[in-house]
Amino acid sequence: MSQVKILLDESEIPAHWYNVVADLPNPPAPPLGPDGKPIDPSALAAIFPQPIIEHEVSRERWIAIPDPVREIYRQWRPTPMFRARRLEAAIGTPARIYYKYEGVSPAGSHKPNTAVAQAYLNHIAGVRRLTTETGAGQWGSALAMAGRMFGIEVRVFMVRVSYDQKPFRRSMMETWGAEVIASPSSHTRSGRRILDLDPESPGSLGIAISEAVEEAVSRDDTKYALGSVLNHVLLHQTVIGLEAKRQFEKAGDYPDVVIACCGGGSNFGGTAFPFLADKAAGRKVRLIAVEPESCPTLTRGHYAYDSGDASGLTPLMLMYTLGHNFVPPSIHAGGLRYHGDSPLVSQLCHEKIVEAVAVPQLATFESGLTFARSEGIIPAPESNHAIRAAIDEAIACKRSGEPKTIFFTLSGHGHFDMTAYDRYLHGELEDISYPADAIAAALDQLPKVAPS
Amino acid sequence: MSQVKILLDESEIPAHWYNVVADLPNPPAPPLGPDGKPIDPSALAAIFPQPIIEHEVSRERWIAIPDPVREIYRQWRPTPMFRARRLEAAIGTPARIYYKYEGVSPAGSHKPNTAVAQAYLNHIAGVRRLTTETGAGQWGSALAMAGRMFGIEVRVFMVRVSYDQKPFRRSMMETWGAEVIASPSSHTRSGRRILDLDPESPGSLGIAISEAVEEAVSRDDTKYALGSVLNHVLLHQTVIGLEAKRQFEKAGDYPDVVIACCGGGSNFGGTAFPFLADKAAGRKVRLIAVEPESCPTLTRGHYAYDSGDASGLTPLMLMYTLGHNFVPPSIHAGGLRYHGDSPLVSQLCHEKIVEAVAVPQLATFESGLTFARSEGIIPAPESNHAIRAAIDEAIACKRSGEPKTIFFTLSGHGHFDMTAYDRYLHGELEDISYPADAIAAALDQLPKVAPS
Repeated sequence: MSQVKILLDESEIPAHWYNVVADLPNPPAPPLGPDGKPIDPSALAAIFPQPIIEHEVSRERWIAIPDPVREIYRQWRPTPMFRARRLEAAIGTPARIYYKYEGVSPAGSHKPNTAVAQAYLNHIAGVRRLTTETGAGQWGSALAMAGRMFGIEVRVFMVRVSYDQKPFRRSMMETWGAEVIASPSSHTRSGRRILDLDPESPGSLGIAISEAVEEAVSRDDTKYALGSVLNHVLLHQTVIGLEAKRQFEKAGDYPDVVIACCGGGSNFGGTAFPFLADKAAGRKVRLIAVEPESCPTLTRGHYAYDSGDASGLTPLMLMYTLGHNFVPPSIHAGGLRYHGDSPLVSQLCHEKIVEAVAVPQLATFESGLTFARSEGIIPAPESNHAIRAAIDEAIACKRSGEPKTIFFTLSGHGHFDMTAYDRYLHGELEDISYPADAIAAALDQLPKVAPS
Repeated sequence: MSQVKILLDESEIPAHWYNVVADLPNPPAPPLGPDGKPIDPSALAAIFPQPIIEHEVSRERWIAIPDPVREIYRQWRPTPMFRARRLEAAIGTPARIYYKYEGVSPAGSHKPNTAVAQAYLNHIAGVRRLTTETGAGQWGSALAMAGRMFGIEVRVFMVRVSYDQKPFRRSMMETWGAEVIASPSSHTRSGRRILDLDPESPGSLGIAISEAVEEAVSRDDTKYALGSVLNHVLLHQTVIGLEAKRQFEKAGDYPDVVIACCGGGSNFGGTAFPFLADKAAGRKVRLIAVEPESCPTLTRGHYAYDSGDASGLTPLMLMYTLGHNFVPPSIHAGGLRYHGDSPLVSQLCHEKIVEAVAVPQLATFESGLTFARSEGIIPAPESNHAIRAAIDEAIACKRSGEPKTIFFTLSGHGHFDMTAYDRYLHGELEDISYPADAIAAALDQLPKVAPS
């Protein structure tokens, strides 16, 4: 039988996370305060405990993964990598396609990789309560589960459109004991401000972040946890790429192209950064971030200082942004509905070290169906973006005859997204055109700070 | 770190299925025709292809698993076995609890173990179209996926109450390209007969089987596939127990108690039969089938010849039954709503080689929540029955101080059952009392055939 599944032993769970900051050609731009001056890391202490801040600002290349985190990782890590032979046959490509499947975690996505780490780091700092935001529900589920493992109470502000579209993600978080609130909500000033402007607001990650941050700042017993964007989140996700590299060694192969979907950037960063270390050392490998056409941060945004949330509560970060007031259209890939992007991914994109492409919604579901019908696994709509790009690469190989090695991360399963598949199968799903006017208006409102 | 996950290599996927018939103290009773006389295996040819019939009637102890089946097994097999250390700690038991997790399959349950085998065996026999029934949707999903892998068209009759409660299971089957019809339907005489009596009928596995069998009998291009009950189905599921035994060897342990939920018997048989081989050889191990109190086939049924479906289209089988006209209450563990049970499991239960217990619905969800909050995985309601029994054993160990080894199969995840969890969490779920009158009435209508 030809090999399809490349497994690692438990002992091969990485002992360290990889910090890409150590290998950047240029140092990252500092976050700025409202006065336009670089903030001191201690300013983050209002919302993050000290061990998280240390991960956020570290320049060390390798950071040890604490044993209690690895202990819980072992519930699902190392995750399997597959050679997608049936998908290759369905496309008729000479390319070799591999994917790493993060949907095997109890929460069904890559998010627990950082949720468990963050819950543990809060736990050792004595934190007993966390607030957070969630888009599609993958991050909220992950933190609900991770919080429960370390006895931490979790309140999740869930983007309204996902709250309505995905009631079962809410039930899942509640099953793990978390409290879930639709955002925008009347619980916070940030939420009320949005509801005053638009009582029917579908919400956005930016708004939900504002609500969660506001509550953490205003309550002594509560810290905040973020599921993407920030350096420490991407750091924790590098277990994906580190394991993948080891799996490629076992398979006796190496990718020409590494692909991951990109919303806030944690799945992409976690997948691509460990390969970037090879690239920095001279190895030829393309790294492609895939985003939705309706929320095309890396491909159409401005590279500018902007706030990470809708209300401007976070420090200003230098990143690709569509403007923090932009509310992305209600596509089904809720995890990719974010106005900004990880500063690290943005910098690497700006410096042309990583590439970005934007794909339309229908094409992503078409790919998801092809994948489900050949490989068996039904992917999350976010992951369908990566599959689309991988299939496009494979089709290009079919035309050129090149037997390239294509690798992508299948970041999660689609079990909570069957409404979207149902709509696609019944012809009710539409492409959402590029929201040019809304983005232009939001970009006009960027904070007036020049990049340093 | 203490071991929590016991993995096998791909090469350790069993090469053979184990046929318990070879080790039974008494030969199985033959299926009977409507005339009360043993039927010839060739009579099954109207609904099954020859390779399936061979598996059904074989007396060989070991039957080789064809390479193309093992090739697809490798997508998720060998499945992981876990030492449930966090659950043990939550209970405070000296017992060692292990579970084998079948929810890692793309369909989310153990069902693909036989679905893939059946699709392949039909494929090599030239069958291009299959009908089947599904309760909770786990079997239908599995066959939809497996059919797609071998280019076989699949029509699924889905029990009405599950069709309504679990629209996303339907979407999942459609995503894999199957056609899904709520049962009872107007497509068949069997369905129309039930609808005439009760237009609001919630349906049952027995009714859906009638519909699927009727269509297979009446169409030359179509065969039928069953997800449980029959010998060949249990045979294919023995990969679960065979892998588990190997995993126990690796862990340096052996179970005192083996537990699995039991509806039609395939999960229980697949889990327990390989251990029964050890028991037959003198090893001490208890094998416990767990069923719902509202559909207590093994614990309250009659051991008698009865039909496998509601309309009496199947041969008569000697089994524990509540009467083929009994429509089980609409509990959330749809996969356990079957009036009968596997003849092999029934015989072993009748001969006191395996044990059976019945548990009430609320207690199963309480256990499921305890499990989710300690181990992370959210179980299917069917699997919660096994968890309940395992926790009861662990509590008994706590009282007695005995450090027993308890093993159960976690047959599937609960991602499509969040409605049920939601209802449980909000106090809307109820215990359903033993439907004594309905069962008594159905038992009165058993076919008048004396056990041979």
